[in-house]
Parts: sequence; C-alpha cells; structure tokens
Amino acid sequence: MKKIFCQIITIGDEILFGHILDSNAQWLSFELDKIGIITKKRVTIGDNKKDILETLKNSINSNDIIIMTGGLGPTNDDITKNCLSEFFNSTLTLNEEALNDIKNLFEKRNLELTKKNISQAYLPKCAKKITNINGTAPGIWIEKNQKIIISLPGVPFEMKEIMKNKCLISLKNKFKLPVIYHKIIKTIGIGESWLADKIQVWENNLDKNIKLAYLPSIGQVKLRLTTSGKNIISLKKNIHKEIEKIKPTIEKYIYGYDDENIEYSISKLLINKKKTIAIAESCTGGLLSHKLTSISGSSKYFLGSIVCYDNNIKKNELNISQKKLDTYGAVSEEVVKDMAKNIKNKYNSSIGLATSGIAGPTGGTKDKPIGTVYIAYSDSKNTISKKLLLTRERYLNNELTCLNILNMIRLKLLKYI
Amino acid sequence: MKKIFCQIITIGDEILFGHILDSNAQWLSFELDKIGIITKKRVTIGDNKKDILETLKNSINSNDIIIMTGGLGPTNDDITKNCLSEFFNSTLTLNEEALNDIKNLFEKRNLELTKKNISQAYLPKCAKKITNINGTAPGIWIEKNQKIIISLPGVPFEMKEIMKNKCLISLKNKFKLPVIYHKIIKTIGIGESWLADKIQVWENNLDKNIKLAYLPSIGQVKLRLTTSGKNIISLKKNIHKEIEKIKPTIEKYIYGYDDENIEYSISKLLINKKKTIAIAESCTGGLLSHKLTSISGSSKYFLGSIVCYDNNIKKNELNISQKKLDTYGAVSEEVVKDMAKNIKNKYNSSIGLATSGIAGPTGGTKDKPIGTVYIAYSDSKNTISKKLLLTRERYLNNELTCLNILNMIRLKLLKYI
Repeated sequence: MKKIFCQIITIGDEILFGHILDSNAQWLSFELDKIGIITKKRVTIGDNKKDILETLKNSINSNDIIIMTGGLGPTNDDITKNCLSEFFNSTLTLNEEALNDIKNLFEKRNLELTKKNISQAYLPKCAKKITNINGTAPGIWIEKNQKIIISLPGVPFEMKEIMKNKCLISLKNKFKLPVIYHKIIKTIGIGESWLADKIQVWENNLDKNIKLAYLPSIGQVKLRLTTSGKNIISLKKNIHKEIEKIKPTIEKYIYGYDDENIEYSISKLLINKKKTIAIAESCTGGLLSHKLTSISGSSKYFLGSIVCYDNNIKKNELNISQKKLDTYGAVSEEVVKDMAKNIKNKYNSSIGLATSGIAGPTGGTKDKPIGTVYIAYSDSKNTISKKLLLTRERYLNNELTCLNILNMIRLKLLKYI
Repeated sequence: MKKIFCQIITIGDEILFGHILDSNAQWLSFELDKIGIITKKRVTIGDNKKDILETLKNSINSNDIIIMTGGLGPTNDDITKNCLSEFFNSTLTLNEEALNDIKNLFEKRNLELTKKNISQAYLPKCAKKITNINGTAPGIWIEKNQKIIISLPGVPFEMKEIMKNKCLISLKNKFKLPVIYHKIIKTIGIGESWLADKIQVWENNLDKNIKLAYLPSIGQVKLRLTTSGKNIISLKKNIHKEIEKIKPTIEKYIYGYDDENIEYSISKLLINKKKTIAIAESCTGGLLSHKLTSISGSSKYFLGSIVCYDNNIKKNELNISQKKLDTYGAVSEEVVKDMAKNIKNKYNSSIGLATSGIAGPTGGTKDKPIGTVYIAYSDSKNTISKKLLLTRERYLNNELTCLNILNMIRLKLLKYI
C-alpha cells in the first residue's frame, strides 16, 4: 500500500519567536497519525512571503498533503492567502460562498460586517472554501497535480473544528490509507536504561512489524509500540500478544496504558478496593491533593487534606508532639509517619498520606540538603515511610515527591510492598 | 550589525507524530530572541537518518547556528550522534570528560553504571561535550566553518539547564549581537479588545522604535513592548517612559511585569503588608494552595489550608452548619463565606480564602450548572464573595477559579475593592 505523507507548516511570528506555544501542529499530526497519514516533517516559519513560498516549493514534491495553519487573519501581517495565490499562479477573488458564511456568522452574533471582514472572503481562485463555523477566516482547500493543500486559521478551536468535521473525513475518502495502531505502556519507578536492560531480549525478538520507542519524562518511562497494516483486529492482537509476553517481567513498574496518567490509575485502584484517602501535605503544599482531585469523580475516594506549612498547624491539627519536632525536625521519618497516621484517624479515611521536605531553593542544611523529602503511607495495618533525595529545583522536587508517593500507594495497594 | 540566524531542529518520532508536545522549541526560540538571535525556522523530524542529514544540509548554509534537541538517549532509536558524526565526516569516540561526568552523576546517585550509560560518553570526535548535570546524555558543541551546531538532550529540564547555564553564555560571547529589550506588562481582569480600546491612543502614539504585541492567554492579557538598538540603558529608558504614560489608565489591571506570575505578585504584596493566609478549598482541590506555595519563601505568609471535599470535613473542621448545607448547598455564597471566615479564625491568619463550585464534567444541575463557582475572601474587617460562571472543562474551571481569587486578593490588598 502506498504510504501517504503530509507536511505541516505553521505560520506566524508569535509562534516562531516562542511567544506562544504551537499546540496545533501536535494536534494535527496526532489526528493524521490516527487515520494512517504519516507526518514527515513539521516546519514553523514567520509571516514572511519568501519563507512561505520557499517552504511550499521544498515540500510539495515529497508529500501528498500539505497542511498550513496561521496567517489567515484580517490584518496586514496575514499573508498566507496571497502566498498561496502566487504559488499556484492564481488570483484572489471574492468567493460568494465564503462571503455568505461570514454574513451568516455576523447575523447570528448580531454584529455589523466591516470591510476587513469582507476581505476575508477573498480566496485564491483555484481554491475551494471550507466553512469555519467558529470564525471569520474560511479554510482553504486546493487540489493540484494529485496534491492536496489545506490552509487553516491558526486559532486552535477554529482549526480543530474544520479539521475534525470536514478535512479529516475528506482525506479519508480521498486516499487509500493503512490502519495504524499504537499502544503505550506506562512505567514508573525504573530508569530508561534499566528498563531497556530488562526488556532487551523481548525487544530484539519483537514482531518485525512492530516498532518500539522509549519515551522518558520526569520520573517515568513510556514504551510505545506501533504497527500498521490493513486489519485493525489482527494488529491489536499482535501488539497485545507482545505485551502479554513482557508483562510478567515489568509488571511491577506498569501503572497504565495510553492516555491514563498515574493519578487516574490510582483512582481506579482506590475505587475498586473501596478505599478512601486523606492527606497531610507539608512540602508539596497542595499539589498532591490537586493531582488526586484532578480526576473527575474523585470525591468517591478523596475525603480531604490539610496543608500544614506552619508548625503550629502540625501541632494543633495533626497532633504532632513538640518533642518530636524538636528532636527530629519537621522533615523527618518520625514526623511524617505521625502526620500520615494522624490525618487518617482525624478524617476517618482508610489511607493517610503525608509529605514533608525541603523543596528549595533555600532552607537546606548539611544534614538535610535541599531535595531531602520524607513521604509516608498509613493504613489500618501499618505505616511506612521513605526518604527521597531529589534535586535542587523546587518545582521538580514537588512533582517528583508526588510521583513517588503515588507510586507508593500503587505498590502498596497491589501488595508489591 | 550582521543579523545572527538560528534554525531549531527537533528530532523524535514521538514529537513528530504528536504523542508529546514540543515545548523545547518554543523555549529555545524565546531565549534566543531575548539575546538578539533570530530563529529563522523550526523543523521537526523523526528519528530517521535520511531526514536528519537532509535537514542539516538544507539549513547549515542559511544559518549561523543550528540547535538540535532529541535523539541522544541510550536506546537504539536514538541516532542523532551517529548522524552528526557522519555529517561532519567524524567518528564516534569515547570522550573521557563525558565519561567522568556520567561516573560522577552515578556516584552521587549511588547507582551502578551500565554499558548503555557508558555508550552515552561516545561523541563525534570533532565535538566538545557540554556537561549535563541532570542526566546521562551530554550536550554536544561543534564548531566548523564559522557555524555552530549544538545538539542537546530532549528532556526539557536537562536541555534548559545546559542551554541556560552554558550555551546561551557561550553564544553571547561568540557573536556580536544587537541589544533587544522586551518588557511585558501583565494584566488580569480585562479582555483583549477592551484593553485595546483603553490603550488605543497611546498605542497609536508609541515611539516608532517600539513594537507592541498583544499576547492573550487564559484569563489574562500580556502586552509585550519590544525595541532594539545598541545601548541597553537608552532602550530601557524609552520603554519605561512609555509604560509610565499608560500606567494610570490600566493600573487596576496590571499585576506584574516580565516573568512575574500572579502568585509571585500576591506573595510580594502579602509580605510587604505583613499578612498571613489560610485557605479552605473545595472545588479547587489543593490547586490554590499549590499555587501560593509554589513561590520560594511562601512559608512567610502561607500558614496552611484544608481541602474539604467531604461535607463531613466542612462540618467538623470548618464548622459549617448542617442547616446551611441543607438550605443553600455546599456550592453557595453562604457556605463559601463561612468557609473563608472560619478557616481564618481556626488557623489564626490575617486573611481567609475559600472556593466551592462544580468543576465538572459531571455534577451540574439546572440551578447550578457545571462551571458555577463561589469564591470568598475574609479579613478582620469584612468577608466578601463572588459568583463565577465558568466553562464546562474541569481543568479550566480550576485554573480560572484560582486566577479569580488571586486577583480578588490583589484588588482587596490594593484597596480597589
């Protein structure tokens, strides 16, 4: 089957110079990937005629599809339409259908048409308009010499609506596309190279049609398996067979698949096991509670928490003794264990969690340098704790502390510890 | 002055196919822009030798600097080093300095070196290593025919540390760069077009050498003023003169400048006014506490908070009467005001804050649809509240609730309300 290649061209000074993040290109390539179109390259350039024309010239021969976003607005710096017109030896002419769309939009919003708005209905003569129900810049579809060029507004929700409801459907009809299947295995608690060592034999013997990629991120490593063919059922079967083979070796580290984040996995575990949770947070300052409540339906397992920055709150609300605070300090195994136990008892939850540490960038001592963190887990049977030696970055220390304690709950609920 | 151009090449199937968002390229072009280096183009390609070599070939002549990220990991799909080696007719050899860095890192972390880790110390012979204090993949610096090629690991916090502390400094020393001066005015509580109306006269009369850009984001609009020349002192003076002109008109909306986020501005206000804060969070689930404790030194003003998802915690810990919960519901002005007042009294802080709402995506009713949120502020003099009607998105609702209440503190402390 012929592979169908696409290039994405993002146009706009604001994106090129880093003043805004380009989330459009990611979304586009992800959606194209799902229907079997391969993004070969993504290019970001400024609102600059020479660069736009050159990029079109360089990309048109090696791709079947070109998707451009940005530069369709009504202001002087928006030049994408002019460039397309020049590139295809066409002229900008009033597109009556596009004008009607714009008129309808203004009528609905009860606004008056301005000259600038009408100018947006001028499209290259060789183009078809694609209706944009969310804005005044119509999408543009040009077909020439078996190539398809799509030009879309840069505003994400306008671009996505046009793409999802019109272009992706047309592209699927236009090309004979392979079926692509991805599965992502998500691991925590093991570094990339150790994981690679553990799965080396499996990796070397993987089905030839399956490609493996390691995707490391803070505190986690994802394994992405990709395959393509004609029949989705057999593709799925092949990938799942391989996953079943490797699962016993790394099961301890797998917390989920595909879009699931660790918070979601923990929430499923807590709901299944009918456990409730309460938290005493010191160094993480609310982040752990935020993560656990970011899941819809979290009120099923999350009762509440106390963020106890001030030692008086540790004493008065969590019943930490002044003697322990004096003897061991707030950042200690002894205190964090009491915090976990006492919040569990106070809020009457099945599990109590606690964090206490020196997040930085100040506050470290010789004995307890920045990045020293204690975490604790307490249930009706016992209370465990762990000392972490993290980084010098406040933000990172809080993220890593949360990941570590979330993994601690997981390991505990699954009886690995 | 000769303009210095840079191309950014992002390498990685996972980015190209949209499985992760490329925030590196944005960060890089933003930082380059700050020191006067112009990003001419950004290209994203896969872990594919032909594409990497071709992109290098196509970009090296029209740029002074090429910065590549990604593909430096220890696994088989990481091929950037091999490509660089081939491109420069060099060979991969063991770099003793790089090996030492890796050994030091493992010693510090008390881990054993694996073969895969040692392989990361092999660099193109023509390259200098750049120390990566956060990971095992060293950065690579190649200079040839007046061109500089930098290859960095794709993990954002590793890449950023190397760039910030090493490469940007070297690039500044290497090239004669123009002085670019940006100043960003950060506003909250006013929409883009209303702000544009308010500052129109000022905008039209701006110094010709100053460019203005509107950068809207969730709940905020930033105004970026840019100017360039030779003398930083006169550039700064010109921009600050313009800011002083517009300030009286929009002062109510300005919460800070440049990198300052609203949390930081609030923290300064609280410290200056010697106020302490305690929070009762329901719908925001810890996010507000997290934001206020994300600032280093937050223990000066932040005492603690209670995340009270469960109504029992609202009753037992925050003294909310069953009658009020029954009559008005937990999401109501009456309850949220009591929450703010009672947490302030319980934790003995100067200010109490509270949030209660329906974050979604489930839980809405006809009277209180998803996105209905109440926020409250209480100090020794009075207690005020506000009803917000937000979106259908859980994540967005929590972010917007936090922004609204942070702005409420600001307006209150500055006596605007």
